[in-house]
Amino acid sequence: MAKITHVSPLAPERFPDLPAIDGVRFAAVEAGVRYAGRVDVMLAELCEGSVVAGTFTRSATRSAPVLDCQAKIEGAATGRAAILVNAGNSNAFTGAGGVTAVQEICKATGAELDIAPERIFTSSTGVIGEPLKWQRITAALTRLKEALDPQGIEPAARAIMTTDTFPKGASAVAECDGGPVTIAGFAKGSGMIAPDMATMLVYIFTDARISRPLLQEMVSTATDSTFNCITVDSDTSTSDTLLVAATGRSKAAEITAGTPSAKAFSEALHGVMLDLAHQVVRDGEGATKFVEVRVTGAASDDDARKVASSIANSPLVKTAIAGEDPNWGRIVMAVGKSGAKADRDLLSISFGEILVAENGWVAPGYTEDAGAEYMKRPELLISVGLGLGDGAATMWTCDLTHGYISINADYRS
Amino acid sequence: MAKITHVSPLAPERFPDLPAIDGVRFAAVEAGVRYAGRVDVMLAELCEGSVVAGTFTRSATRSAPVLDCQAKIEGAATGRAAILVNAGNSNAFTGAGGVTAVQEICKATGAELDIAPERIFTSSTGVIGEPLKWQRITAALTRLKEALDPQGIEPAARAIMTTDTFPKGASAVAECDGGPVTIAGFAKGSGMIAPDMATMLVYIFTDARISRPLLQEMVSTATDSTFNCITVDSDTSTSDTLLVAATGRSKAAEITAGTPSAKAFSEALHGVMLDLAHQVVRDGEGATKFVEVRVTGAASDDDARKVASSIANSPLVKTAIAGEDPNWGRIVMAVGKSGAKADRDLLSISFGEILVAENGWVAPGYTEDAGAEYMKRPELLISVGLGLGDGAATMWTCDLTHGYISINADYRS
Repeated sequence: MAKITHVSPLAPERFPDLPAIDGVRFAAVEAGVRYAGRVDVMLAELCEGSVVAGTFTRSATRSAPVLDCQAKIEGAATGRAAILVNAGNSNAFTGAGGVTAVQEICKATGAELDIAPERIFTSSTGVIGEPLKWQRITAALTRLKEALDPQGIEPAARAIMTTDTFPKGASAVAECDGGPVTIAGFAKGSGMIAPDMATMLVYIFTDARISRPLLQEMVSTATDSTFNCITVDSDTSTSDTLLVAATGRSKAAEITAGTPSAKAFSEALHGVMLDLAHQVVRDGEGATKFVEVRVTGAASDDDARKVASSIANSPLVKTAIAGEDPNWGRIVMAVGKSGAKADRDLLSISFGEILVAENGWVAPGYTEDAGAEYMKRPELLISVGLGLGDGAATMWTCDLTHGYISINADYRS
Repeated sequence: MAKITHVSPLAPERFPDLPAIDGVRFAAVEAGVRYAGRVDVMLAELCEGSVVAGTFTRSATRSAPVLDCQAKIEGAATGRAAILVNAGNSNAFTGAGGVTAVQEICKATGAELDIAPERIFTSSTGVIGEPLKWQRITAALTRLKEALDPQGIEPAARAIMTTDTFPKGASAVAECDGGPVTIAGFAKGSGMIAPDMATMLVYIFTDARISRPLLQEMVSTATDSTFNCITVDSDTSTSDTLLVAATGRSKAAEITAGTPSAKAFSEALHGVMLDLAHQVVRDGEGATKFVEVRVTGAASDDDARKVASSIANSPLVKTAIAGEDPNWGRIVMAVGKSGAKADRDLLSISFGEILVAENGWVAPGYTEDAGAEYMKRPELLISVGLGLGDGAATMWTCDLTHGYISINADYRS
């Protein structure tokens, strides 16, 4: 495999200090699934009384572990559980052998931890279409079990990275009835990122006491405005997985629907998910800019989303941003092709606070110099007003650079 | 403007010898609209008895000249006419001033040639959002008129180029009842190319005697399987225009619907359009590979088109092709995200004659070496079978390279 030098200028200085979650232990080891000299398998063990919710890619060519997780998660019981993830091979499009690999991993992990295989959730990320050497993973289980540690979240976050340049973590505390509820999670993903969901693996843990159906509802709702609103390259993975596990160990009362505690908890969960989603975009393959696209005034929210998506996925808009070129004409183009209702003469475009275009033409006070100066920033806001109604949507994306081409033209070579 | 060095290895050795079309004269001059030291405005004059048909971008932010052409072309009469095109400025999103520019150009061109302004069709291509200096065009009209020449098609084809690396021309002769009918045309376009239509200007001329409605019907039908089946970067221009003019000067009888002559003529027209469409893809910004994506076995033609489009527009597929990496896993991904009905275990993928994957996994006889060897070719065929029905679609695209980034990250700088 080629050496990938993907240095993101948008990376945080260091992995955040994440709180331990009562009832969860982590481990990460080098199993040699594909990479050498780095941790590539992580295990999270969940205590008695845990519930697990999740959302998954809607790809028609979903990977074997995704299909297995989906089958297990609906109506899953409360109890001990574990999550096992490997990097380097996605076990996607691997035929019957791929299904066997998932079964063998779940069986062996369950035996090692004394947990039913139906309560073992696995994910795999990496190359598509190559047989997963699952024996390398099962051979590492004893070492994984011995390494389990409530403080082990950072190595776990590092173990699931592929082309990521930094591990991604976020946490929050919600003040609930009876005490605080803590949430901590991590994610990987930097290419093959587009709504529905992005090419991502995301694992979030909380000590909340909450029923599985309520947790699932909150997770599904929050996914729509976080991970389903980011795009790096419009490509959707076969492996996207978000799992949220709640151990019930918090001293707070059980969180029930419609209460202030539910509101506090779901806001905290949304915050963690949005933070992780933004980190994925910041680490977009080759990214040098973080871009928020905010669309208002559309005839409907759906139309607003079409326009935001069209802008955020346009190669011409994204290369202009890479070149720090305030080429707002390409934004006009992207609005025009979006399929949403638009009236050229009602359209307005702003870069940050700078009004660029309105009434079907460049704004009277706009200067190219002001636009060019704004484009030098590492974080950009592109606002588009359609002037038609109340529909609104926000998406986050990055620029399209030589780095993206370099990473993806020789990923496997 | 930055110097663009975009050398396409897929360019033809030279512009083809195109036949003169009886009743059409061409001229091209340096008007200094934006570029210096090159021809940038072309004029085509059509004789008495001519009809004009056309198809246009469906963008909601269409340029002023496109809107003007569309208004004029529906139900347009038979008679003298002219087509005037400039490069360097697209006169798109230029407000009321843009409309004025089109009116002034049509008025002045009409006066110079003694043709009604309603019979002057204009196009503009280039930067969006900057006022078109139309006075530079009208100041060149006398020179254009003096240069009119039946043999002047190649300079006209060169005058409308922007980031194109070569002028694109094609011709055909149809044997019709009473004699041959000749067709010759040219096109420009290499970025902002995607169905609906591509970012293109296309002008085709024929000496056929044919009614405007029948010509329009043939042009619309042929557009769907030619220019609407190519993509460079999924971006759709505000300016796409295809005009087909018939002078009626051929010795052949009038072409009427349902006759062998109509069939011969429409096949020849389709051939010219497909040839020009392929040339646009070959000259795709930064392109080093010409790729045909052929999808069969879909539940419907519409589903087949979704899959073909998803593959042809996928940045990950296109960067893999750029890297000569037979990364068929990314094709699986693109099928999965397309929104079309697909069954992973019925899917088959081939590179040329090489069966790569079938039955949900890599094909037994496939070797990575064979795939890698195939990917070195400049012209590639990717075939996908869905195994579900009779739906089929073919699209043409190119790879996504550093050249695309270089061209588009500093187009205006």
